[in-house]
Amino acid sequence: MSKKAAPDPSRRSETARRAILTAALDLVGEVGYAKLSIEGIAAAAGVGKQTIYRWWPSKGALLFDAFLTLAGEGDDGQSAALPDTGDLAADLKLVLRATVEELNDPRYDQPMRALHTEIVHDPALAADYAKRLDEPMRELKKERLRSARDAGQLAADVDLDVAVDLLFGPVLNRWLQRTGPLTAEYADQVVDTALRGLRPREP
Amino acid sequence: MSKKAAPDPSRRSETARRAILTAALDLVGEVGYAKLSIEGIAAAAGVGKQTIYRWWPSKGALLFDAFLTLAGEGDDGQSAALPDTGDLAADLKLVLRATVEELNDPRYDQPMRALHTEIVHDPALAADYAKRLDEPMRELKKERLRSARDAGQLAADVDLDVAVDLLFGPVLNRWLQRTGPLTAEYADQVVDTALRGLRPREP
Repeated sequence: MSKKAAPDPSRRSETARRAILTAALDLVGEVGYAKLSIEGIAAAAGVGKQTIYRWWPSKGALLFDAFLTLAGEGDDGQSAALPDTGDLAADLKLVLRATVEELNDPRYDQPMRALHTEIVHDPALAADYAKRLDEPMRELKKERLRSARDAGQLAADVDLDVAVDLLFGPVLNRWLQRTGPLTAEYADQVVDTALRGLRPREP
Repeated sequence: MSKKAAPDPSRRSETARRAILTAALDLVGEVGYAKLSIEGIAAAAGVGKQTIYRWWPSKGALLFDAFLTLAGEGDDGQSAALPDTGDLAADLKLVLRATVEELNDPRYDQPMRALHTEIVHDPALAADYAKRLDEPMRELKKERLRSARDAGQLAADVDLDVAVDLLFGPVLNRWLQRTGPLTAEYADQVVDTALRGLRPREP
Protein backbone atom coordinates (compact mmCIF):
# COMPACT_ATOMS: atom_id res chain seq x y z
CA MET A 1 0.00 0.00 0.00
CA SER A 2 1.96 2.97 -1.26
CA LYS A 3 0.94 6.33 0.14
CA LYS A 4 0.76 7.82 -3.29
CA ALA A 5 -1.07 5.34 -5.58
CA ALA A 6 -0.54 5.82 -9.32
CA PRO A 7 -3.77 7.06 -10.91
CA ASP A 8 -5.73 4.23 -12.48
CA PRO A 9 -5.42 4.80 -16.26
CA SER A 10 -8.74 3.16 -17.12
CA ARG A 11 -10.56 5.29 -14.53
CA ARG A 12 -8.76 8.39 -15.79
CA SER A 13 -9.80 7.73 -19.36
CA GLU A 14 -13.39 7.00 -18.30
CA THR A 15 -13.39 10.39 -16.52
CA ALA A 16 -12.12 12.06 -19.70
CA ARG A 17 -14.69 10.21 -21.80
CA ARG A 18 -17.55 11.40 -19.62
CA ALA A 19 -16.20 14.96 -19.55
CA ILE A 20 -16.13 14.94 -23.37
CA LEU A 21 -19.66 13.55 -23.69
CA THR A 22 -21.04 16.07 -21.20
CA ALA A 23 -19.22 18.93 -22.93
CA ALA A 24 -20.61 17.84 -26.31
CA LEU A 25 -24.19 17.87 -25.02
CA ASP A 26 -23.77 21.19 -23.22
CA LEU A 27 -22.14 22.84 -26.23
CA VAL A 28 -24.61 21.64 -28.83
CA GLY A 29 -27.37 23.08 -26.66
CA GLU A 30 -25.56 26.43 -26.55
CA VAL A 31 -24.23 26.89 -30.08
CA GLY A 32 -26.23 24.43 -32.21
CA TYR A 33 -24.90 21.59 -34.28
CA ALA A 34 -23.51 23.60 -37.21
CA LYS A 35 -21.18 25.57 -34.93
CA LEU A 36 -20.24 22.63 -32.72
CA SER A 37 -16.53 21.87 -33.18
CA ILE A 38 -14.16 19.21 -31.88
CA GLU A 39 -11.87 22.08 -30.77
CA GLY A 40 -14.68 23.61 -28.72
CA ILE A 41 -15.59 20.31 -27.10
CA ALA A 42 -11.94 19.58 -26.31
CA ALA A 43 -11.51 23.00 -24.68
CA ALA A 44 -14.72 22.65 -22.64
CA ALA A 45 -13.79 19.14 -21.52
CA GLY A 46 -10.17 20.07 -20.69
CA VAL A 47 -8.66 17.45 -23.02
CA GLY A 48 -6.60 17.59 -26.19
CA LYS A 49 -8.24 17.37 -29.62
CA GLN A 50 -6.26 14.21 -30.34
CA THR A 51 -7.90 12.45 -27.40
CA ILE A 52 -11.28 13.02 -29.02
CA TYR A 53 -10.13 11.98 -32.49
CA ARG A 54 -8.66 8.80 -31.03
CA TRP A 55 -12.09 7.75 -29.75
CA TRP A 56 -14.54 9.17 -32.29
CA PRO A 57 -14.27 9.49 -36.10
CA SER A 58 -16.60 12.54 -36.37
CA LYS A 59 -18.63 14.98 -34.33
CA GLY A 60 -21.76 13.07 -35.42
CA ALA A 61 -20.45 9.85 -33.92
CA LEU A 62 -19.41 11.65 -30.74
CA LEU A 63 -22.79 13.29 -30.39
CA PHE A 64 -24.49 9.95 -30.91
CA ASP A 65 -22.54 8.44 -28.01
CA ALA A 66 -23.28 11.50 -25.91
CA PHE A 67 -26.95 11.07 -26.69
CA LEU A 68 -26.91 7.35 -25.82
CA THR A 69 -25.35 8.29 -22.48
CA LEU A 70 -28.03 10.93 -21.86
CA ALA A 71 -30.79 8.46 -22.75
CA GLY A 72 -29.16 5.78 -20.62
CA GLU A 73 -28.93 8.03 -17.56
CA GLY A 74 -32.62 8.82 -17.78
CA ASP A 75 -33.52 5.20 -17.13
CA ASP A 76 -30.55 4.13 -15.00
CA GLY A 77 -28.76 2.63 -17.97
CA GLN A 78 -31.37 -0.09 -18.36
CA SER A 79 -33.39 -0.46 -21.53
CA ALA A 80 -36.67 -0.74 -19.73
CA ALA A 81 -39.60 -2.77 -21.00
CA LEU A 82 -42.82 -0.88 -21.73
CA PRO A 83 -45.40 -0.94 -18.95
CA ASP A 84 -47.85 -3.83 -19.18
CA THR A 85 -50.87 -3.35 -16.94
CA GLY A 86 -53.14 -5.25 -19.34
CA ASP A 87 -54.67 -1.94 -20.55
CA LEU A 88 -52.89 -1.40 -23.87
CA ALA A 89 -54.26 2.09 -24.57
CA ALA A 90 -53.36 3.36 -21.09
CA ASP A 91 -49.87 1.88 -21.28
CA LEU A 92 -49.18 3.37 -24.71
CA LYS A 93 -50.49 6.79 -23.63
CA LEU A 94 -48.19 6.74 -20.62
CA VAL A 95 -45.18 6.05 -22.86
CA LEU A 96 -46.12 8.56 -25.56
CA ARG A 97 -46.90 11.30 -23.02
CA ALA A 98 -43.44 10.75 -21.51
CA THR A 99 -41.94 11.01 -24.99
CA VAL A 100 -43.79 14.28 -25.60
CA GLU A 101 -42.49 15.64 -22.29
CA GLU A 102 -38.93 14.66 -23.18
CA LEU A 103 -39.11 16.19 -26.65
CA ASN A 104 -40.42 19.43 -25.15
CA ASP A 105 -37.49 19.55 -22.68
CA PRO A 106 -34.74 21.88 -24.00
CA ARG A 107 -32.09 19.57 -22.49
CA TYR A 108 -33.13 16.86 -24.99
CA ASP A 109 -34.52 18.95 -27.83
CA GLN A 110 -31.32 20.46 -29.21
CA PRO A 111 -29.04 17.40 -29.08
CA MET A 112 -31.82 15.21 -30.51
CA ARG A 113 -32.41 17.62 -33.40
CA ALA A 114 -28.68 17.62 -34.07
CA LEU A 115 -28.61 13.83 -34.01
CA HIS A 116 -31.58 13.57 -36.38
CA THR A 117 -29.96 16.01 -38.79
CA GLU A 118 -26.87 13.83 -38.93
CA ILE A 119 -28.97 10.71 -39.44
CA VAL A 120 -30.77 12.32 -42.37
CA HIS A 121 -27.49 13.05 -44.17
CA ASP A 122 -25.11 10.32 -43.01
CA PRO A 123 -26.06 6.77 -44.07
CA ALA A 124 -23.33 5.20 -41.88
CA LEU A 125 -24.57 7.01 -38.79
CA ALA A 126 -28.16 6.13 -39.75
CA ALA A 127 -27.19 2.45 -39.83
CA ASP A 128 -25.50 2.80 -36.44
CA TYR A 129 -28.56 4.58 -35.04
CA ALA A 130 -30.89 1.92 -36.44
CA LYS A 131 -28.81 -0.87 -34.90
CA ARG A 132 -27.94 0.63 -31.53
CA LEU A 133 -31.01 2.71 -30.72
CA ASP A 134 -34.00 2.20 -33.02
CA GLU A 135 -33.95 -1.62 -33.14
CA PRO A 136 -33.62 -2.26 -29.38
CA MET A 137 -36.37 0.30 -28.65
CA ARG A 138 -38.53 -1.10 -31.43
CA GLU A 139 -38.12 -4.61 -30.00
CA LEU A 140 -39.44 -3.44 -26.61
CA LYS A 141 -42.44 -1.80 -28.31
CA LYS A 142 -43.17 -4.92 -30.35
CA GLU A 143 -42.88 -7.04 -27.20
CA ARG A 144 -45.67 -5.00 -25.61
CA LEU A 145 -47.82 -5.25 -28.75
CA ARG A 146 -47.18 -9.01 -28.97
CA SER A 147 -48.41 -9.40 -25.43
CA ALA A 148 -51.58 -7.44 -26.37
CA ARG A 149 -52.03 -9.60 -29.45
CA ASP A 150 -51.70 -12.76 -27.35
CA ALA A 151 -54.38 -11.32 -25.06
CA GLY A 152 -56.71 -10.88 -28.07
CA GLN A 153 -56.48 -7.06 -27.96
CA LEU A 154 -54.94 -6.76 -31.43
CA ALA A 155 -55.93 -8.50 -34.65
CA ALA A 156 -53.90 -11.67 -35.11
CA ASP A 157 -52.48 -10.66 -38.49
CA VAL A 158 -51.34 -7.13 -37.61
CA ASP A 159 -47.78 -6.43 -38.81
CA LEU A 160 -46.09 -5.33 -35.60
CA ASP A 161 -43.48 -3.17 -37.34
CA VAL A 162 -46.16 -1.19 -39.15
CA ALA A 163 -48.12 -0.94 -35.88
CA VAL A 164 -45.05 0.54 -34.15
CA ASP A 165 -44.64 3.04 -37.00
CA LEU A 166 -48.28 4.12 -36.74
CA LEU A 167 -48.21 4.47 -32.96
CA PHE A 168 -44.81 6.08 -32.42
CA GLY A 169 -44.11 7.88 -35.72
CA PRO A 170 -46.61 10.76 -35.61
CA VAL A 171 -45.24 12.32 -32.40
CA LEU A 172 -41.70 12.22 -33.78
CA ASN A 173 -42.84 13.78 -37.06
CA ARG A 174 -44.74 16.58 -35.41
CA TRP A 175 -41.74 17.37 -33.24
CA LEU A 176 -39.23 17.31 -36.12
CA GLN A 177 -41.36 19.27 -38.59
CA ARG A 178 -43.08 21.50 -36.02
CA THR A 179 -46.34 21.04 -37.92
CA GLY A 180 -48.50 21.40 -34.82
CA PRO A 181 -48.49 21.61 -31.03
CA LEU A 182 -46.85 18.63 -29.34
CA THR A 183 -49.10 17.93 -26.38
CA ALA A 184 -50.25 15.08 -24.17
CA GLU A 185 -53.68 15.40 -25.83
CA TYR A 186 -52.14 14.80 -29.24
CA ALA A 187 -50.35 11.70 -27.91
CA ASP A 188 -53.67 10.37 -26.58
CA GLN A 189 -55.44 11.04 -29.88
CA VAL A 190 -52.78 9.17 -31.84
CA VAL A 191 -53.10 6.15 -29.57
CA ASP A 192 -56.90 6.18 -29.66
CA THR A 193 -57.09 6.61 -33.43
CA ALA A 194 -54.42 4.03 -34.22
CA LEU A 195 -55.95 1.49 -31.86
CA ARG A 196 -59.53 2.06 -32.88
CA GLY A 197 -58.55 2.13 -36.50
CA LEU A 198 -60.00 4.49 -39.02
CA ARG A 199 -62.77 2.33 -40.35
CA PRO A 200 -66.10 1.93 -38.64
CA ARG A 201 -66.66 -1.50 -37.09
CA GLU A 202 -68.06 -4.20 -39.30
CA PRO A 203 -71.80 -4.50 -38.73
CA MET B 1 -41.52 49.31 -83.04
CA SER B 2 -37.80 49.87 -82.58
CA LYS B 3 -35.49 47.31 -84.15
CA LYS B 4 -33.57 46.87 -80.93
CA ALA B 5 -36.13 46.58 -78.13
CA ALA B 6 -34.84 47.18 -74.63
CA PRO B 7 -34.79 43.86 -72.73
CA ASP B 8 -37.84 43.44 -70.54
CA PRO B 9 -36.50 43.82 -66.98
CA SER B 10 -39.19 41.65 -65.39
CA ARG B 11 -38.52 38.85 -67.87
CA ARG B 12 -34.79 39.21 -67.31
CA SER B 13 -35.16 38.95 -63.57
CA GLU B 14 -37.49 35.94 -63.92
CA THR B 15 -34.78 34.28 -66.04
CA ALA B 16 -32.19 35.01 -63.35
CA ARG B 17 -34.53 33.75 -60.64
CA ARG B 18 -35.05 30.43 -62.41
CA ALA B 19 -31.32 30.07 -63.12
CA ILE B 20 -30.61 30.58 -59.41
CA LEU B 21 -33.25 28.06 -58.30
CA THR B 22 -32.01 25.46 -60.80
CA ALA B 23 -28.40 26.02 -59.76
CA ALA B 24 -29.33 25.62 -56.07
CA LEU B 25 -31.02 22.25 -56.72
CA ASP B 26 -28.19 20.99 -58.94
CA LEU B 27 -25.52 22.07 -56.48
CA VAL B 28 -27.14 20.68 -53.35
CA GLY B 29 -27.38 17.33 -55.16
CA GLU B 30 -23.66 17.48 -55.97
CA VAL B 31 -22.06 18.87 -52.82
CA GLY B 32 -24.69 18.37 -50.10
CA TYR B 33 -26.29 21.04 -47.98
CA ALA B 34 -23.39 21.72 -45.60
CA LYS B 35 -21.08 22.70 -48.48
CA LEU B 36 -23.73 24.58 -50.43
CA SER B 37 -22.81 28.29 -50.53
CA ILE B 38 -24.42 31.41 -51.92
CA GLU B 39 -21.12 32.07 -53.74
CA GLY B 40 -21.29 28.68 -55.43
CA ILE B 41 -24.90 29.12 -56.48
CA ALA B 42 -24.19 32.63 -57.81
CA ALA B 43 -21.26 31.33 -59.87
CA ALA B 44 -23.26 28.41 -61.26
CA ALA B 45 -26.23 30.64 -62.12
CA GLY B 46 -24.04 33.38 -63.66
CA VAL B 47 -25.34 36.12 -61.34
CA GLY B 48 -23.79 38.24 -58.62
CA LYS B 49 -24.05 37.26 -54.96
CA GLN B 50 -25.92 40.46 -54.23
CA THR B 51 -28.70 39.45 -56.61
CA ILE B 52 -29.29 36.36 -54.50
CA TYR B 53 -29.11 38.22 -51.19
CA ARG B 54 -31.61 40.75 -52.51
CA TRP B 55 -34.20 38.01 -53.02
CA TRP B 56 -33.49 35.48 -50.27
CA PRO B 57 -32.39 35.99 -46.64
CA SER B 58 -30.60 32.61 -46.33
CA LYS B 59 -29.62 29.51 -48.25
CA GLY B 60 -32.39 27.66 -46.42
CA ALA B 61 -35.02 30.08 -47.73
CA LEU B 62 -33.54 29.88 -51.25
CA LEU B 63 -33.54 26.10 -51.19
CA PHE B 64 -37.12 26.08 -49.99
CA ASP B 65 -38.20 28.17 -52.99
CA ALA B 66 -36.16 25.93 -55.28
CA PHE B 67 -37.91 22.93 -53.81
CA LEU B 68 -41.37 24.49 -54.25
CA THR B 69 -40.50 25.10 -57.91
CA LEU B 70 -39.36 21.49 -58.33
CA ALA B 71 -42.53 20.20 -56.68
CA GLY B 72 -44.65 22.58 -58.77
CA GLU B 73 -43.10 21.49 -62.06
CA GLY B 74 -43.87 17.86 -61.30
CA ASP B 75 -47.59 18.58 -61.37
CA ASP B 76 -47.71 21.48 -63.83
CA GLY B 77 -47.75 24.02 -61.05
CA GLN B 78 -51.19 22.93 -59.91
CA SER B 79 -51.76 21.60 -56.43
CA ALA B 80 -53.70 18.58 -57.56
CA ALA B 81 -56.49 17.01 -55.57
CA LEU B 82 -56.01 13.40 -54.48
CA PRO B 83 -57.63 10.80 -56.74
CA ASP B 84 -61.18 9.89 -55.74
CA THR B 85 -62.40 6.72 -57.44
CA GLY B 86 -64.59 5.81 -54.48
CA ASP B 87 -62.07 3.13 -53.40
CA LEU B 88 -60.27 4.87 -50.54
CA ALA B 89 -57.58 2.21 -50.00
CA ALA B 90 -56.70 2.06 -53.70
CA ASP B 91 -56.55 5.85 -53.98
CA LEU B 92 -54.31 6.20 -50.93
CA LYS B 93 -52.01 3.42 -52.12
CA LEU B 94 -51.62 5.17 -55.47
CA VAL B 95 -50.60 8.40 -53.75
CA LEU B 96 -48.26 6.78 -51.23
CA ARG B 97 -46.60 4.60 -53.87
CA ALA B 98 -45.93 7.75 -55.92
CA THR B 99 -44.45 9.38 -52.80
CA VAL B 100 -42.19 6.37 -52.26
CA GLU B 101 -41.03 6.55 -55.86
CA GLU B 102 -40.28 10.26 -55.54
CA LEU B 103 -38.35 9.82 -52.27
CA ASN B 104 -36.27 7.07 -53.89
CA ASP B 105 -35.41 9.36 -56.83
CA PRO B 106 -31.95 10.95 -56.30
CA ARG B 107 -33.18 14.14 -57.99
CA TYR B 108 -35.58 14.68 -55.06
CA ASP B 109 -33.78 12.83 -52.29
CA GLN B 110 -30.87 15.20 -51.67
CA PRO B 111 -32.69 18.55 -51.86
CA MET B 112 -35.52 17.18 -49.72
CA ARG B 113 -33.09 15.94 -47.07
CA ALA B 114 -31.43 19.35 -47.08
CA LEU B 115 -34.80 21.05 -46.70
CA HIS B 116 -35.82 18.78 -43.83
CA THR B 117 -32.54 19.44 -42.05
CA GLU B 118 -33.20 23.16 -42.21
CA ILE B 119 -36.76 22.70 -40.99
CA VAL B 120 -35.53 20.72 -37.99
CA HIS B 121 -33.19 23.55 -36.91
CA ASP B 122 -34.86 26.72 -38.13
CA PRO B 123 -38.23 27.53 -36.53
CA ALA B 124 -38.90 30.41 -38.98
CA LEU B 125 -38.36 28.17 -41.98
CA ALA B 126 -40.45 25.46 -40.32
CA ALA B 127 -43.32 27.93 -39.97
CA ASP B 128 -42.93 28.91 -43.63
CA TYR B 129 -42.85 25.25 -44.65
CA ALA B 130 -45.93 24.48 -42.57
CA LYS B 131 -47.84 27.37 -44.12
CA ARG B 132 -46.75 27.11 -47.75
CA LEU B 133 -46.33 23.38 -48.24
CA ASP B 134 -47.59 21.20 -45.40
CA GLU B 135 -50.94 22.92 -44.85
CA PRO B 136 -52.08 23.08 -48.51
CA MET B 137 -51.06 19.41 -49.01
CA ARG B 138 -52.71 18.42 -45.75
CA GLU B 139 -55.92 20.16 -46.83
CA LEU B 140 -56.01 18.08 -50.02
CA LYS B 141 -55.50 14.89 -48.02
CA LYS B 142 -58.22 15.83 -45.55
CA GLU B 143 -60.54 16.66 -48.41
CA ARG B 144 -60.18 13.08 -49.72
CA LEU B 145 -60.73 11.64 -46.23
CA ARG B 146 -63.76 13.88 -45.70
CA SER B 147 -65.28 12.53 -48.91
CA ALA B 148 -64.66 8.97 -47.63
CA ARG B 149 -66.21 9.86 -44.30
CA ASP B 150 -69.29 11.27 -46.06
CA ALA B 151 -69.51 7.98 -47.98
CA GLY B 152 -69.53 6.06 -44.66
CA GLN B 153 -66.06 4.59 -45.24
CA LEU B 154 -64.53 6.24 -42.17
CA ALA B 155 -65.90 6.47 -38.66
CA ALA B 156 -67.82 9.72 -38.21
CA ASP B 157 -65.73 10.91 -35.28
CA VAL B 158 -62.26 10.30 -36.72
CA ASP B 159 -59.94 13.31 -36.28
CA LEU B 160 -58.84 13.98 -39.85
CA ASP B 161 -55.53 15.58 -38.85
CA VAL B 162 -54.54 12.53 -36.84
CA ALA B 163 -55.70 10.30 -39.71
CA VAL B 164 -53.44 12.21 -42.12
CA ASP B 165 -50.52 11.80 -39.69
CA LEU B 166 -51.10 8.04 -39.42
CA LEU B 167 -51.45 7.53 -43.16
CA PHE B 168 -48.70 9.81 -44.48
CA GLY B 169 -46.21 10.03 -41.59
CA PRO B 170 -44.69 6.52 -41.58
CA VAL B 171 -43.31 6.70 -45.13
CA LEU B 172 -41.68 10.06 -44.41
CA ASN B 173 -40.19 8.73 -41.18
CA ARG B 174 -38.77 5.61 -42.76
CA TRP B 175 -37.22 7.72 -45.51
CA LEU B 176 -35.71 10.30 -43.14
CA GLN B 177 -34.39 7.83 -40.59
CA ARG B 178 -33.58 5.03 -43.03
CA THR B 179 -34.98 2.53 -40.52
CA GLY B 180 -36.10 0.09 -43.22
CA PRO B 181 -36.60 -0.42 -46.96
CA LEU B 182 -38.89 2.15 -48.55
CA THR B 183 -40.99 0.10 -50.97
CA ALA B 184 -44.41 0.07 -52.59
CA GLU B 185 -45.23 -2.94 -50.40
CA TYR B 186 -44.52 -0.91 -47.26
CA ALA B 187 -46.78 1.88 -48.54
CA ASP B 188 -49.59 -0.65 -49.08
CA GLN B 189 -49.11 -2.15 -45.63
CA VAL B 190 -49.32 1.26 -43.97
CA VAL B 191 -52.57 2.04 -45.78
CA ASP B 192 -54.10 -1.36 -45.01
CA THR B 193 -53.09 -1.28 -41.34
CA ALA B 194 -54.15 2.32 -40.78
CA LEU B 195 -57.50 1.79 -42.50
CA ARG B 196 -58.26 -1.55 -40.95
CA GLY B 197 -57.19 -0.30 -37.59
CA LEU B 198 -55.20 -2.30 -35.13
CA ARG B 199 -58.06 -3.68 -33.11
CA PRO B 200 -60.09 -6.70 -34.18
CA ARG B 201 -63.65 -5.89 -35.24
CA GLU B 202 -66.27 -5.75 -32.54
CA PRO B 203 -68.26 -9.00 -32.49
